Amino acid sequence: MIIVGERINGTSARVREAVTARDAGFIAQEAQRQAEAGADYIDVNAGTEPERELEDIAWLIGVVQAATDKPVSVDSPNPEALKAGLEACQGKALVNSVSGEEGRLLPILGLVKAHGARVVGLALGDAGLPKTADERLAAAKQVVAAAESLGIPRDDVFIDPLVRSVAIENEQGAAFLEAVSAIRESLPGVHIVCGLSNVSFQMPSRKLLNRTFLAMAMARGLDAAILDPLDAALMAVVCAGNVLLGKDEMCMEYIQAHRSGRLG
Amino acid sequence: MIIVGERINGTSARVREAVTARDAGFIAQEAQRQAEAGADYIDVNAGTEPERELEDIAWLIGVVQAATDKPVSVDSPNPEALKAGLEACQGKALVNSVSGEEGRLLPILGLVKAHGARVVGLALGDAGLPKTADERLAAAKQVVAAAESLGIPRDDVFIDPLVRSVAIENEQGAAFLEAVSAIRESLPGVHIVCGLSNVSFQMPSRKLLNRTFLAMAMARGLDAAILDPLDAALMAVVCAGNVLLGKDEMCMEYIQAHRSGRLG
Repeated sequence: MIIVGERINGTSARVREAVTARDAGFIAQEAQRQAEAGADYIDVNAGTEPERELEDIAWLIGVVQAATDKPVSVDSPNPEALKAGLEACQGKALVNSVSGEEGRLLPILGLVKAHGARVVGLALGDAGLPKTADERLAAAKQVVAAAESLGIPRDDVFIDPLVRSVAIENEQGAAFLEAVSAIRESLPGVHIVCGLSNVSFQMPSRKLLNRTFLAMAMARGLDAAILDPLDAALMAVVCAGNVLLGKDEMCMEYIQAHRSGRLG
Repeated sequence: MIIVGERINGTSARVREAVTARDAGFIAQEAQRQAEAGADYIDVNAGTEPERELEDIAWLIGVVQAATDKPVSVDSPNPEALKAGLEACQGKALVNSVSGEEGRLLPILGLVKAHGARVVGLALGDAGLPKTADERLAAAKQVVAAAESLGIPRDDVFIDPLVRSVAIENEQGAAFLEAVSAIRESLPGVHIVCGLSNVSFQMPSRKLLNRTFLAMAMARGLDAAILDPLDAALMAVVCAGNVLLGKDEMCMEYIQAHRSGRLG
């Protein structure tokens, strides 16, 4: 599993405060703690107003890169901020994210190609949020076709089939899982990623739903996740899932995690 | 999910003691506690020597049936004990289990048919323990074909693809999950069941592996499990898995479990 650590996000009040105050120590520590807990990418989202987001995201990326060797996931809905973020990145960054909406896809994929980056493509086209597995697969195909038209290899494309809450539409969990299988079968070579927490929006006992859903999605072909690597119970599921899918040679990582007390 | 409560098993020293001492109170309480925790079947395995197993299993079934309304899962490797157990059962019992080995399959399925029972068929043929998903599917087909030749409907057949430990053969988790998908696709209408704990044999942090594997198998089509319903963390995963597969209408069971403190 490829883990994208989600903690440096300006929608968190504490992170926003650190961004505004240019508190590099706090941000560096958040980056290091996530890297030590198993993050492969450190996601960076300034979450600030457009007039200062470019400057903020560049500052954040500088701090994160000084603090860890892990590559950065540049996270913004704003194409200008993605561009500024990519320019601040050393090494192979992940662009998080681009949708399949008309007018957005090709310009952002052009940036991705120009910087030799990787990209999260949302299963979201002009029709809006997908409901069914078929809608998710169709949107994923559109993103992959556009990426390939620019020469971006599938190994650099992460499809996010978009997790939606089961609270209102009970079938959304199953539809997501079906989409993961369909994308794994129809688009071999791409990565499949998601944020988990939407699945439990407006439900009680959310963390149990989130980590059960992670195991289920791994069983269907999810190979990356955007999550909080400091959530020990969630990371224990990642570790167990890797063993159970035969992706932890000789079970060494699991046994090591057990010995160091990380499995609870 | 159909839950078969596994606690009344003579391989447990405490149960064996109760069987030998004819301690009906202990057995009745074990049956009731499992029923209250969500068991759909109460598995009954005397685990005693052949010369007394028939008498013991009949006594156990009598005690369990006096204690709860849940149907019994008659559990023995001994065809004579299965017969004695079925004769002691009221209602529609589950016969646990029959293998596809030459000479065993048809006689036991004949008993199942005669009593209008259901049956767990192991994915185990004359070739011995299966390794690959294909071997498991082939053995499952053999069991289902034999059941159908006797007029046993698929809804009365539970295939157990046989969980094996990942400790020695790291690929056994993935092979089991592939088998679940293959059986779900090739043999529509049958149930798929398993015991979980073998997956973690000789591994540390076993319960984490067992419950992660349960979520993964549910995501691939497992719809029944033989487990300890008093393991609250495991039953919480069942409850979460049902929600995430859209099998808990309006999420009412999950919300109720949360309110009663059963989700931890």
